[in-house]
Amino acid sequence: MKTGIWIVGAYGSVATCAVVGAEAIKKGIASRTGLVSELPAIQELDVVPIQDLVFGGCDVRATDMLGAAEEVRRDPGIVSHEMIDALRAELLEISRDVTAGCSLNCGEEVSGMAGDRGIENGRTASEVVAEIQRQIKAFRERHRLQRVVVVNLASTEAAPEMPREYQSLKEFARLIVEDRRKLLCASVLYAYSALDLGCPFVNFTPSFGSSIPALEELAVIRGVPHAGKDGKTGETLVKTALAPMFLARNLRLLAWESHNILGNRDGLVLRQPGANKSKIRDKEEALKQLVKDESLHSHVSIDYCPSLGDWKTAWDFIHFEGFLGTRMTMQFTWQGCDSALAAPLVLDLVRLIDFAARRGESGAQKQLACFFKSPWQVKEHDFFKQFAALMEYVERAHVEQPVGKGARSEV
Amino acid sequence: MKTGIWIVGAYGSVATCAVVGAEAIKKGIASRTGLVSELPAIQELDVVPIQDLVFGGCDVRATDMLGAAEEVRRDPGIVSHEMIDALRAELLEISRDVTAGCSLNCGEEVSGMAGDRGIENGRTASEVVAEIQRQIKAFRERHRLQRVVVVNLASTEAAPEMPREYQSLKEFARLIVEDRRKLLCASVLYAYSALDLGCPFVNFTPSFGSSIPALEELAVIRGVPHAGKDGKTGETLVKTALAPMFLARNLRLLAWESHNILGNRDGLVLRQPGANKSKIRDKEEALKQLVKDESLHSHVSIDYCPSLGDWKTAWDFIHFEGFLGTRMTMQFTWQGCDSALAAPLVLDLVRLIDFAARRGESGAQKQLACFFKSPWQVKEHDFFKQFAALMEYVERAHVEQPVGKGARSEV
Amino acid sequence: MKTGIWIVGAYGSVATCAVVGAEAIKKGIASRTGLVSELPAIQELDVVPIQDLVFGGCDVRATDMLGAAEEVRRDPGIVSHEMIDALRAELLEISRDVTAGCSLNCGEEVSGMAGDRGIENGRTASEVVAEIQRQIKAFRERHRLQRVVVVNLASTEAAPEMPREYQSLKEFARLIVEDRRKLLCASVLYAYSALDLGCPFVNFTPSFGSSIPALEELAVIRGVPHAGKDGKTGETLVKTALAPMFLARNLRLLAWESHNILGNRDGLVLRQPGANKSKIRDKEEALKQLVKDESLHSHVSIDYCPSLGDWKTAWDFIHFEGFLGTRMTMQFTWQGCDSALAAPLVLDLVRLIDFAARRGESGAQKQLACFFKSPWQVKEHDFFKQFAALMEYVERAHVEQPVGKGARSEV
Amino acid sequence: MKTGIWIVGAYGSVATCAVVGAEAIKKGIASRTGLVSELPAIQELDVVPIQDLVFGGCDVRATDMLGAAEEVRRDPGIVSHEMIDALRAELLEISRDVTAGCSLNCGEEVSGMAGDRGIENGRTASEVVAEIQRQIKAFRERHRLQRVVVVNLASTEAAPEMPREYQSLKEFARLIVEDRRKLLCASVLYAYSALDLGCPFVNFTPSFGSSIPALEELAVIRGVPHAGKDGKTGETLVKTALAPMFLARNLRLLAWESHNILGNRDGLVLRQPGANKSKIRDKEEALKQLVKDESLHSHVSIDYCPSLGDWKTAWDFIHFEGFLGTRMTMQFTWQGCDSALAAPLVLDLVRLIDFAARRGESGAQKQLACFFKSPWQVKEHDFFKQFAALMEYVERAHVEQPVGKGARSEV
Repeated sequence: MKTGIWIVGAYGSVATCAVVGAEAIKKGIASRTGLVSELPAIQELDVVPIQDLVFGGCDVRATDMLGAAEEVRRDPGIVSHEMIDALRAELLEISRDVTAGCSLNCGEEVSGMAGDRGIENGRTASEVVAEIQRQIKAFRERHRLQRVVVVNLASTEAAPEMPREYQSLKEFARLIVEDRRKLLCASVLYAYSALDLGCPFVNFTPSFGSSIPALEELAVIRGVPHAGKDGKTGETLVKTALAPMFLARNLRLLAWESHNILGNRDGLVLRQPGANKSKIRDKEEALKQLVKDESLHSHVSIDYCPSLGDWKTAWDFIHFEGFLGTRMTMQFTWQGCDSALAAPLVLDLVRLIDFAARRGESGAQKQLACFFKSPWQVKEHDFFKQFAALMEYVERAHVEQPVGKGARSEV
Repeated sequence: MKTGIWIVGAYGSVATCAVVGAEAIKKGIASRTGLVSELPAIQELDVVPIQDLVFGGCDVRATDMLGAAEEVRRDPGIVSHEMIDALRAELLEISRDVTAGCSLNCGEEVSGMAGDRGIENGRTASEVVAEIQRQIKAFRERHRLQRVVVVNLASTEAAPEMPREYQSLKEFARLIVEDRRKLLCASVLYAYSALDLGCPFVNFTPSFGSSIPALEELAVIRGVPHAGKDGKTGETLVKTALAPMFLARNLRLLAWESHNILGNRDGLVLRQPGANKSKIRDKEEALKQLVKDESLHSHVSIDYCPSLGDWKTAWDFIHFEGFLGTRMTMQFTWQGCDSALAAPLVLDLVRLIDFAARRGESGAQKQLACFFKSPWQVKEHDFFKQFAALMEYVERAHVEQPVGKGARSEV
Repeated sequence: MKTGIWIVGAYGSVATCAVVGAEAIKKGIASRTGLVSELPAIQELDVVPIQDLVFGGCDVRATDMLGAAEEVRRDPGIVSHEMIDALRAELLEISRDVTAGCSLNCGEEVSGMAGDRGIENGRTASEVVAEIQRQIKAFRERHRLQRVVVVNLASTEAAPEMPREYQSLKEFARLIVEDRRKLLCASVLYAYSALDLGCPFVNFTPSFGSSIPALEELAVIRGVPHAGKDGKTGETLVKTALAPMFLARNLRLLAWESHNILGNRDGLVLRQPGANKSKIRDKEEALKQLVKDESLHSHVSIDYCPSLGDWKTAWDFIHFEGFLGTRMTMQFTWQGCDSALAAPLVLDLVRLIDFAARRGESGAQKQLACFFKSPWQVKEHDFFKQFAALMEYVERAHVEQPVGKGARSEV
Repeated sequence: MKTGIWIVGAYGSVATCAVVGAEAIKKGIASRTGLVSELPAIQELDVVPIQDLVFGGCDVRATDMLGAAEEVRRDPGIVSHEMIDALRAELLEISRDVTAGCSLNCGEEVSGMAGDRGIENGRTASEVVAEIQRQIKAFRERHRLQRVVVVNLASTEAAPEMPREYQSLKEFARLIVEDRRKLLCASVLYAYSALDLGCPFVNFTPSFGSSIPALEELAVIRGVPHAGKDGKTGETLVKTALAPMFLARNLRLLAWESHNILGNRDGLVLRQPGANKSKIRDKEEALKQLVKDESLHSHVSIDYCPSLGDWKTAWDFIHFEGFLGTRMTMQFTWQGCDSALAAPLVLDLVRLIDFAARRGESGAQKQLACFFKSPWQVKEHDFFKQFAALMEYVERAHVEQPVGKGARSEV
């Protein structure tokens, strides 16, 4: 049986790369490089094969998956003309499963794209939830899916402080019932709808999504696994791999400066002070939690640089002190294509959370911390310790054999 | 009771920084930053306190420890005028324990420095061994040391291919007996002399030292621990911390270019093709063993750049492939002071091998792999796995409590 | 006869380096590297020898030149213990010529340093001008100086928009007479006092100084030369040397990102939004005027990074387009010691403006544009065209021989 | 009337980009960015329009221009599928004008590509010259060209020391007559053939080409202009733009390290020690001639890094000394596509040398020095002085109006 991926922000470039890449792998015209779930150790588990993934979702923009793929071909330039040609039929087919989306409190940039297509128009919050659940169920039934994993890949929402009502499910649910829209936003409505429906949820963005206490409660009650937040794709990945090296050598970090430039839609959205702030907070938090030294000067800045498109470039300057007070430096420049880095992780997360769901796990999936800048319910930010935790989980799961090789499709 | 460190190359800048740093810590005028052995986990063990370390050794150059410290103050500039003033008496005192050294087959640069001071002049190989052992014993007795750890910090020897006689202790011993000098070199004579005398040996350089099968045999027979080779201080450290990140994300490494520039005595010696080759081999080996991909283009070059002195600068360019065949890059520049990075590791190694000796361990100390570019008898090059191995050893040692807190001085 | 340099901000690190460097050159214990005025072409002119420069000035801080030199020794670490020892007498002597300074509207950081020492306390603006002129005249008489050049090296003032009264001398003078303090600031009061007294003025900072229309008028009326503003020492120097290369190749600049980090007192002052803005404006203006392309995305950010001290580090990322629309990148990192870069330029400017004064020149000295980020009255920002202009001036001056070799001291 | 460009190495990537780019400009589907000859000042001259350029040449490889364009689309990826489609007819047409080439002493890599197609097989040197001239004349006649400019874009030849016979035309001619093949190579045979036929010659490579005294003689005798050698496209361009900045500030250059990595056919050829040496010599010469300081440590290394293809990456590390002996650093990374940088310069050189030919100029064209790493007969390496010389030439030519606007086509 097949597993569905229902993507919030289905026409964004990360989503499009995930879809195009998976379909290309199905056809044998792309390699599996970049997929963590294809590492030998994980392949020993019975994770759902790429072949059995079915894509659908919603988006506030009015285009189709073929148009989205063409955009990706032009900007990061990582999909070729030939590949799109070969996948034309599949991409058009998938577009049929992409519905209108909700853009409630997503900020001006997103509202501008959405126009009046947003499903929140003319609906109360409860009605929006019902509509989302109707869309997901329709997708599940149309393709006779065993399970649908909902993934949030929409643009970062301008994040106010977390409303205190998000602390408990009861109060959060009341916000919906009473349609107190000012305190709600699209990502939490999608997370609520998914978990309530029994669908695992992956929050790949810095938005709230399911990464709030109220929805942790709901996930546990409904027995559904979820994970988040904010995919750790590039510069933060490097940071959380490098900082432990300095700590292991007992070198003192004096300053860690990070300057990021990017020019994709995400960058455009980040020009809104709120969105920028929440992104920067996630990026800084990782380092601060790793290096428990008050005197460390750590600074993250982001600038929108249109000509770079999706090719995010980051410069990090690390000032550290060694023996005899000697001050030394390391600097690095990271030039990565965000979509190409994020897309395979989305597929990995879907496969691993689908696996967890089959195992009957619920609530925060802490073994997935290595995929996130702000791992929900996990304090460890050291990438290698996070990765070791995943490997231990994999080994344990393999030993316990809760799902035998081949058993997957029978469940 | 005290532990002696008998340093081969005692007036080199790494040695000098280790000595000055340790003496400054004893006086409370320098911090312990950079010392791995001061990490809380290791401090739980009963490693010898800095306070109880006593320094001596040999050098082919005719200077004293005060002059060596002045050199370090001028070139890397990491020791202050004030600090040297405060340690004047101690440094002069230590000079008394520094004897003439052996420069057999150490290459032209070292021979040039040694002139006719080299103890190999007018002595057969057996007599050189006897002289070295006489020096070490005299040092041990003079200071009533519980144990002497011998550390090789001399300049890199021009390395021919390893003579096949190094494969077994029997044949190796015959080289000494028969005084077949062409196949011998200072580092192996020192290692032989130390192990034979029951002194733990640390080979911090890329030279053979004790890192040959013949001396592994000897170490086991004599029940002495040893470790090597080639301290992992800077760029290779970063490499072995970063490469695992790419592997954990299933990103394919296409090319890893490393260009190193340095201007210290080590750099001068590295201008000899042989020495350069052995250094580069160690640097390349680490990456090759980590990334088991034949198609990876990995290249290391080193240039002697006088104005940099001890401030080694390395540029690494990493070309990698991700999802959908996307090619991306990361590059870093490392600007580190070699002596300041190496010196504390020397103290760490002495303290940890002294601890192992007390525990009765012998032969290759695999838990110390994280300190070396070419860890003897260890295949793992992933820095974090190496470090985790050290932490496991520490924990195990702590649990087993073979030496209770406070027990150290009684043994 | 001798030329005096009266420095506003005499205990700042740029000033201190200029003083220490000049005194060390007088004693033959420092080289002339970094002094443009020592280039052979300029040496052909009869500029005042370093030997004949006499230092004085004012500062809001209560220290002396020896203390200031000790600070410089500690932070950027560019002056040695030995050098300070050798100059002890001279530095103490110079301190006698440093008076209390004015901190009117210099921002909180400077006011904090000044406390109630500021000479604006209890004085009207006119009285402040009188006091400044009294100080300068006293310095001139004490040392029987032929001429005093006043140089502004004080911290950057928080710059509001330029008051419209600065547009004409008449209105500006009325601000002083009427003591409208809110519209005045220390740098313009010093510039006014100097020019009015017939002293050439150099504005090395981004503050207004003499770089306003009102004071251009005054300089012309009094027949005094002046120059400014904002010394071009590091990253902006590189920018204005590199951008012309791209233009000469008809390569299209798409983006030029600059991220600067620094930790000196200047950086501290720059944390004030106003000061930061005026500094960034100067930095951006240079590039914008060079590259007349509206579509260029140019961005400058500055962060205060305490551990770096005076070692300003800048990362510039340049994205450009070539033939067939090919997009390429260049990036550079500049690690320079601000004081060591600025100090010799201060001496150069003093020598060249002193030379101009002798030649009877007045008003803006456009040939000095290559020294400034925002050259007053000059639109050309191409460093090499600016430098060629200086060389032409030098050649012309040499040919015209308005001051014969040796004539200098007779005038 | 039209001007022909006869390219030696017509299917190489630089040549292919020049051809595709020019044809695309003719069709209005590519911009003129990167063409120096399109700068407003030069456009005032009556240089031949892109529209009037006709392409032909020779190559040792058996492919056609369409195949060559496809290769360029795949590797540096700078030509799109759509562009090639649009130019299909033109590219096939141009292929008809590409003949077999000479690979005499071009090194193993080139010989390997040539197989037995090389026109030197079965021909004496004189016969090779006759064949080359026959080919060029046929091209000229077929298209009724007013003039044919011959451009050497072939792979770098392994350069032995220059034979002393190259010093005079008489001796050089005798090498040909006597068929002393060991002392001849393809590039000089092409240069000789072209100049002897009255065709201007451009030597864009580090090979000898026309950049030898014997052929300077010939060019003057025949009244033909020529220029060379070794196009200054990337890292050396930056070097010769930056070094003057340090000199203008009287900063002392201590070390300039350059490490270059590239993966194109040029890189493959450079793996031959001889070719590498001649390339490195050109790169080092520029800096050495600029900075006349014996103590400068300058070092250039090149490594062949296959995955980079035509995207040459260079890291330069500059160590310099300023005031008070302060040592500072600047480093840059250049990531440029060699073909995209070189191709427009080839068109520029053709247009400017064609212009010079019309003006009746002969011998070395010194005004073109800014285009070359080793400008023939020019000692000045400062890029901005070289560029200023070109601008002066342009201005002079404009004033003299030797060819009136519109006169070109009448000549």
